[in-house]
Amino acid sequence: MRVIADVNITPLGAGASLSSHVAACEEIIEEAGLKYHLHAHGTNLEGSWEEVMRVIQRCHDVLHERGAPRVDSSIRVATATDKDQSLEERVNKVEKRMR
Amino acid sequence: MRVIADVNITPLGAGASLSSHVAACEEIIEEAGLKYHLHAHGTNLEGSWEEVMRVIQRCHDVLHERGAPRVDSSIRVATATDKDQSLEERVNKVEKRMR
Amino acid sequence: MRVIADVNITPLGAGASLSSHVAACEEIIEEAGLKYHLHAHGTNLEGSWEEVMRVIQRCHDVLHERGAPRVDSSIRVATATDKDQSLEERVNKVEKRMR
Amino acid sequence: MRVIADVNITPLGAGASLSSHVAACEEIIEEAGLKYHLHAHGTNLEGSWEEVMRVIQRCHDVLHERGAPRVDSSIRVATATDKDQSLEERVNKVEKRMR
Repeated sequence: MRVIADVNITPLGAGASLSSHVAACEEIIEEAGLKYHLHAHGTNLEGSWEEVMRVIQRCHDVLHERGAPRVDSSIRVATATDKDQSLEERVNKVEKRMR
Repeated sequence: MRVIADVNITPLGAGASLSSHVAACEEIIEEAGLKYHLHAHGTNLEGSWEEVMRVIQRCHDVLHERGAPRVDSSIRVATATDKDQSLEERVNKVEKRMR
Repeated sequence: MRVIADVNITPLGAGASLSSHVAACEEIIEEAGLKYHLHAHGTNLEGSWEEVMRVIQRCHDVLHERGAPRVDSSIRVATATDKDQSLEERVNKVEKRMR
Repeated sequence: MRVIADVNITPLGAGASLSSHVAACEEIIEEAGLKYHLHAHGTNLEGSWEEVMRVIQRCHDVLHERGAPRVDSSIRVATATDKDQSLEERVNKVEKRMR
């Protein structure tokens, strides 16, 4: 099952400056070879259910290794049986409908 | 890795009445043997990362089988290395701190 | 407009122990007179759109006052025009459909 | 209070094709003059707490007017007292930290 996902990962107890931790996650996503798009409140991911969840789990592991005793994620997942979706298409379809 | 998760699953294109679809998911969760708590905006889940994600994936599958061409989930996941967490403890700890 | 909402508020840069901070928010919600239900991954809220959003904003304010330089919330909001919803009814309707 | 928010709005009972509904929301956001960024799983918003919440409420109203008996939103809100944040800065800071 293909998914279009979005994840916002927050390490807790590792200070208020999160950008280096978020960057460590982005590198994991990039190494995994998933299509992704970083935005101001998370990261869009495209791949199979298993790939996407494995990458998010790996980000939790790495943030714990970097010293965060707690890690929280907020994840959105969309699956569809009536069409193949891609990150770009989902954006393009909305933009085309705007006046 | 143990997780305390929360999931809100929404079938799209299967009408506005969602309770029978949500009930079908709850049964999947119950059959999986996970500890869970149904609330007004989702379901708390306690288990291993793999178990929890497999159950949510199974809910997507079943909602597609029940006729929803699209299924969206909003998931929260918390992991901790400094303590074992349970659904009850997380609630109890807050309630104890309230005046 | 009535809403059934759910909020999970996370203070960042205020340590990994969140229960006292969450308890401070619960007291704000209680003082506001909103119907609420605390669960393991957030709090269900029932009220008007304005009341609910004002209470969540007040929680952000208080967590900043308690020393968190950053506060993140994950919020779910449901509105309906075809029926009046309550926290209990949303749970009861699902439980009735389970075998 | 300035916020960096992210919203994913889902009309229920209005069919599985959501792009025209999402486009209607994007137009509301644009008319409101808020800085925004559409991505594959929602829209980043930058503005005051009140402005952002009023725009999201207006989107719920419009989707109900367009025929959806139920509308669900998943919202992320970040506030900060130690710095001014912008949509671009949040992305740039992460990208700078990536190898």
